Amino acid sequence: MRNAALLGLDWGTSSLRAYLFDQDGKVLDERRSECGIMALPAPREQDGFPLALEQICGDWLKTNTSLPVLACGMVGSQQGWKEAAYFDCPADPKVLAQSLTEVLFGAGRKVHIVPGLIMRGDYPDVMRGEETQIVGAMGLASAASDHATIVLPGTHSKWARLDKGIISEFTTFMTGEVFAALSQNTILSRLITSAEGAQSVRDQAFQRGLEIAGKPESGGLLSAIFRTRTLGLTEQVPGFALADFLSGLLIGYEIHGVQEKFQKDAALYLIGDEKLVARYVKALAIKGFQSTVLKDATQFGLWRIACAAGLVP
Amino acid sequence: MRNAALLGLDWGTSSLRAYLFDQDGKVLDERRSECGIMALPAPREQDGFPLALEQICGDWLKTNTSLPVLACGMVGSQQGWKEAAYFDCPADPKVLAQSLTEVLFGAGRKVHIVPGLIMRGDYPDVMRGEETQIVGAMGLASAASDHATIVLPGTHSKWARLDKGIISEFTTFMTGEVFAALSQNTILSRLITSAEGAQSVRDQAFQRGLEIAGKPESGGLLSAIFRTRTLGLTEQVPGFALADFLSGLLIGYEIHGVQEKFQKDAALYLIGDEKLVARYVKALAIKGFQSTVLKDATQFGLWRIACAAGLVP
Repeated sequence: MRNAALLGLDWGTSSLRAYLFDQDGKVLDERRSECGIMALPAPREQDGFPLALEQICGDWLKTNTSLPVLACGMVGSQQGWKEAAYFDCPADPKVLAQSLTEVLFGAGRKVHIVPGLIMRGDYPDVMRGEETQIVGAMGLASAASDHATIVLPGTHSKWARLDKGIISEFTTFMTGEVFAALSQNTILSRLITSAEGAQSVRDQAFQRGLEIAGKPESGGLLSAIFRTRTLGLTEQVPGFALADFLSGLLIGYEIHGVQEKFQKDAALYLIGDEKLVARYVKALAIKGFQSTVLKDATQFGLWRIACAAGLVP
Repeated sequence: MRNAALLGLDWGTSSLRAYLFDQDGKVLDERRSECGIMALPAPREQDGFPLALEQICGDWLKTNTSLPVLACGMVGSQQGWKEAAYFDCPADPKVLAQSLTEVLFGAGRKVHIVPGLIMRGDYPDVMRGEETQIVGAMGLASAASDHATIVLPGTHSKWARLDKGIISEFTTFMTGEVFAALSQNTILSRLITSAEGAQSVRDQAFQRGLEIAGKPESGGLLSAIFRTRTLGLTEQVPGFALADFLSGLLIGYEIHGVQEKFQKDAALYLIGDEKLVARYVKALAIKGFQSTVLKDATQFGLWRIACAAGLVP
């Protein structure tokens, strides 16, 4: 890969993805390993990070001895290779790109790490990794840069608002993690089964959860989630569809929470795992919002930040 | 105890309480064992239930061979001694008392089991054991019978409305169980410490959580709970007070959910564990509600149901 211009790393808690870019930002090659920052091939004190990097793309680094390396994600956390201090939001991606943290490896080579974002104040919030996806989204959808909301569903869903090229604010929702905790570690787990069942019944249960969310008569989230049990007990929803009901309910409350906090008129862009994003597209449509799905936001974000940082010509 | 008139049993999942009443409803003696329905001295098929009863108060039953026995709680669930089918709410305690389920033990003796309550419809709800506490509360506070709200904080908090001697509706909030799941099984557990710290700081954190609850800018519960992490990360709340913050937040959302669902003008009566009830009294006061704490509601409820059922003269 003689014409390689950048090695981009998406280095999270449970996985590591490497992208090799050419000078036009095209991805020449892509690799994935399980060496997330919590599953390194050796302890961090024993060069776990450079070893993981060597394992996944030592050949690329050897062939291109001056190849710049840019990494985003939990690799920049306190538990990562080197802490990249949070960058304050509202954030201008161009300034963010001037605030990379450097860590040395091999014979004088550097990895540049993208900082996470922080919202300060009475309702502080943080993200790490998603900032790069958002910068990618701003390039993928030119309209998104001007005035839009980016939604990143996941364990911790993030909703970010963009205004005239600036990431103006964002909010985290623990939707995915709360779903896991409720469906595995509470009484709700008892009636939820993994049996197969009609997709139409599952879809109905998902929609029922969505529609209850935010209604005053539901008594709020802490009460509404108990319906996962009582709709099962009263046989209104079969066991195989109760997880869908709970999922719809929680995603519905996430959307309800955003509606109270953010303006509603912005265009919505979704980034993330295909199946989960499809669930959000459906939920948003039921709630009356149109949304557009963006792909490859992480890799494009790495490329854009590298350009703005001057790592590539 | 020659003058004993009733044996009352409060038989839950993890404990069994026995009350010996005289003919005026006074408690002559009281015992507690760990033999909840999930911790019987033998499997249910091998007489686990009568064995547990024999262990805790065999002497009382032997001395008083015609002593009537009334039980409430999970002993009447599907996993209990015998299922006592749910009684429909709105519920008149006098009619409820005519709907006891009988189970035989020993030489032709009976245990009478109080049914739980069910709310049917689009938002079904159930309780088992609390109905007896509510009937007790109606007797303890004469005003409560007319028009009031009874609050039973716990793993699954119950809020019940009383109108002219009828239990007219109730709602469950999974507050206690959600607190446990979030503080033990999610990322929030990482910053929460059990270190000792100033009570005033803990009180402030509790109040901060309470005040955020329900505010639009909090983004709703799924977002607000993430502040347990970010207020810790930004060192606004020390680790030893983060559990108090989360507790205040969840209790605040419970009260917020009730406010949306129920009328607000009713008198509030609290029943339950002393420490937890004190927390709710404080929370309700901060939210502008006066409340009265009632004691011994379970035993008084057992007595009142026994009287209405004709088990005692």
